[in-house]
Amino acid sequence: MSTKKLLILAGDGIGPEVMAQVRRVIDWMAKKRHIAFDVSEGLIGGASYDKFGHPLTDETMQDAFAADAVLLGAVGGPKWDNLSFDVKPERGLLRLRKDLELFANLRPAFVFDALAEASSLKTDLVKGLDIMIVRELTGGVYFGQPRGIETLPNGERRGVNTQVYTTSEIVRIADVAFDLAKKRGNKVHSVEKANVMESGVLWREEVQKLHDAKYPSVELQHMYADNCAMQLVRAPKQFDVIVTDNLFGDILSDCAAMLTGSLGMLPSASLGAADAKGNRRAVYEPVHGSAPDIAGKDIANPLATLLSFAMMLRYSFDMRAEADLLEQAVKNVLDGGLRTGDIMQAGKAKVSTTVMGESIVREM
Amino acid sequence: MSTKKLLILAGDGIGPEVMAQVRRVIDWMAKKRHIAFDVSEGLIGGASYDKFGHPLTDETMQDAFAADAVLLGAVGGPKWDNLSFDVKPERGLLRLRKDLELFANLRPAFVFDALAEASSLKTDLVKGLDIMIVRELTGGVYFGQPRGIETLPNGERRGVNTQVYTTSEIVRIADVAFDLAKKRGNKVHSVEKANVMESGVLWREEVQKLHDAKYPSVELQHMYADNCAMQLVRAPKQFDVIVTDNLFGDILSDCAAMLTGSLGMLPSASLGAADAKGNRRAVYEPVHGSAPDIAGKDIANPLATLLSFAMMLRYSFDMRAEADLLEQAVKNVLDGGLRTGDIMQAGKAKVSTTVMGESIVREM
Ligand SMILES: CC(C)[C@H](C(=O)O)[C@@H](O)C(=O)O
Ligand SMILES: CC(C)[C@H](C(=O)O)[C@@H](O)C(=O)O
Repeated sequence: MSTKKLLILAGDGIGPEVMAQVRRVIDWMAKKRHIAFDVSEGLIGGASYDKFGHPLTDETMQDAFAADAVLLGAVGGPKWDNLSFDVKPERGLLRLRKDLELFANLRPAFVFDALAEASSLKTDLVKGLDIMIVRELTGGVYFGQPRGIETLPNGERRGVNTQVYTTSEIVRIADVAFDLAKKRGNKVHSVEKANVMESGVLWREEVQKLHDAKYPSVELQHMYADNCAMQLVRAPKQFDVIVTDNLFGDILSDCAAMLTGSLGMLPSASLGAADAKGNRRAVYEPVHGSAPDIAGKDIANPLATLLSFAMMLRYSFDMRAEADLLEQAVKNVLDGGLRTGDIMQAGKAKVSTTVMGESIVREM
Repeated sequence: MSTKKLLILAGDGIGPEVMAQVRRVIDWMAKKRHIAFDVSEGLIGGASYDKFGHPLTDETMQDAFAADAVLLGAVGGPKWDNLSFDVKPERGLLRLRKDLELFANLRPAFVFDALAEASSLKTDLVKGLDIMIVRELTGGVYFGQPRGIETLPNGERRGVNTQVYTTSEIVRIADVAFDLAKKRGNKVHSVEKANVMESGVLWREEVQKLHDAKYPSVELQHMYADNCAMQLVRAPKQFDVIVTDNLFGDILSDCAAMLTGSLGMLPSASLGAADAKGNRRAVYEPVHGSAPDIAGKDIANPLATLLSFAMMLRYSFDMRAEADLLEQAVKNVLDGGLRTGDIMQAGKAKVSTTVMGESIVREM
């Protein structure tokens, strides 16, 4: 296998310290498995702003284009909260997604048996939970034009954003969702507000058409976004794959993530279209944020980032054995009773970020 | 006190049967308290479509303008799912809100002690919960122009909606939220996606300005909508008043409602601006939908509609004693062990819609 180019963008807050644990796994793979990655690093978010005055530079963007996959930590923090809109840390992340055309954001929400009791929901409602949220990531109100704030003749201000989807944008994300569902529980919930928004009407019609033409054997249900939020809280196990737009996906995937009770455990993948060889551009990142309040204290949970790396091994590099090994190591370490502070439970052993990282490597 | 004009729009599904229980209370008030309402009825939603080909006629709209308050049941159902966008049952509800300029939607999410265990959340996380969501109801992406579906030169379709807010729209809804907070826990969370949307940047700035100028003693926190969804699931009791836009309010209020575990218990009020005499146009309605699957079976829970009527007595007619009496009756009947099917618990007595209504009146 040729050397794979991996770009690490650790970002802000706890980003660098959780990423250091991935480095351990990469070192282990080089030593024990003779799998060498060509790893480079770059800045994104506040860290990039502090050095270059911008949350993602053209140079780093070029590195991202040149890489086979990108592993991202997290961006943002109160230090940069008052920056103007177009240089906020988040803009770096949004540019990365948009320029690489990563239209498919896969956000699994699953519960490790060892952690089922950490959920704020009653344990039997979440034990065994395994949802895959497929969020459209390069369209909708996040990028629609026109947008901005204008001053009206009467002195009032007016803020505008545009929610917009085309047929092809809807079809390509729905295709990812149906395809995934076939490898999972064979059920897709497509979520919009077709009762209020025409963009939702189009969404519903196009998803239904694709279903009937290409995936008639997959179970498809349409659901309004407000009802979906309710159903996630009421009975989350009714869901297998949820496909939805950028903004609803942002809210619903965070809601679903919190159901698991351990945000610090959840990875995500953002994928582009497959090229002729079947390769996709891809960014992997934990679902949690940069957690500036605990940054630099060696107490953050590195498992979501490690599991994001496992997703990378699986989806980008087809290294299933190594992905399995890493995921199993996480499971074993949890079963063995090790916990970082965020997932600490009575009777378990509280460990630092570093010790958690070392334990995973030892377990592998 | 002059006779109050009350328009009842029972709507679809379980609407008529839960509304019949409100009629009992109105009759009781006439007989026992000599409080006479001038009650008229009209059609809305699918029921109106079936008779008139439109989900809300100009005549009914005139009746709504003439009324001191409107009590609404619920609209919609699979029977009308395939109607074209502009005659769907929901359009009737949206027109009512828009034409009456009901910009302030108050959606309390509270938990009756007797029902705390019905929540899917662990009981201690929701016992005593009392959140007030203040949702902007006549602006944003629900009504913004341009909107629609167009066909592009290449044959693709494109669906567009516009998220738009002006200074004055933001200020008037924030004012309602701060004012309410002063009478409650003195804390407001203002929710948007200012990290992604300029309309959210404007929202945040205007809410902050109003706070600093008029409500400096109320605690104000800004929160992103995705984080708010998480925090509602994680630790809902951290919230007192949440103020947010039309679309986020739709999703977050349903999420909050489901936390209580008893959607069938939650009322809502939609209010316009106060006139010179301090009167506001107002529509009161339960948070739950039309529940077509159980319609006509006399098993629906009428309590949310009865509590909506109590909100009307309190906010529109200043009949606090009667509102207290009705709310206390609901509490007592629950403490006494009566339950409709949706809130049934082991060891309690399951009763019909009618028996629940009769029990409330008897208790009063
Ligand atoms: C940081 C922010 C711009 C981002 C988003 O809204 O997409 C985040 O919430 C996410 O879900 O990845
Ligand atoms: C029925 C629908 C149009 C409505 C909305 O989206 O506002 C409903 O969900 C609500 O919250 O009252």
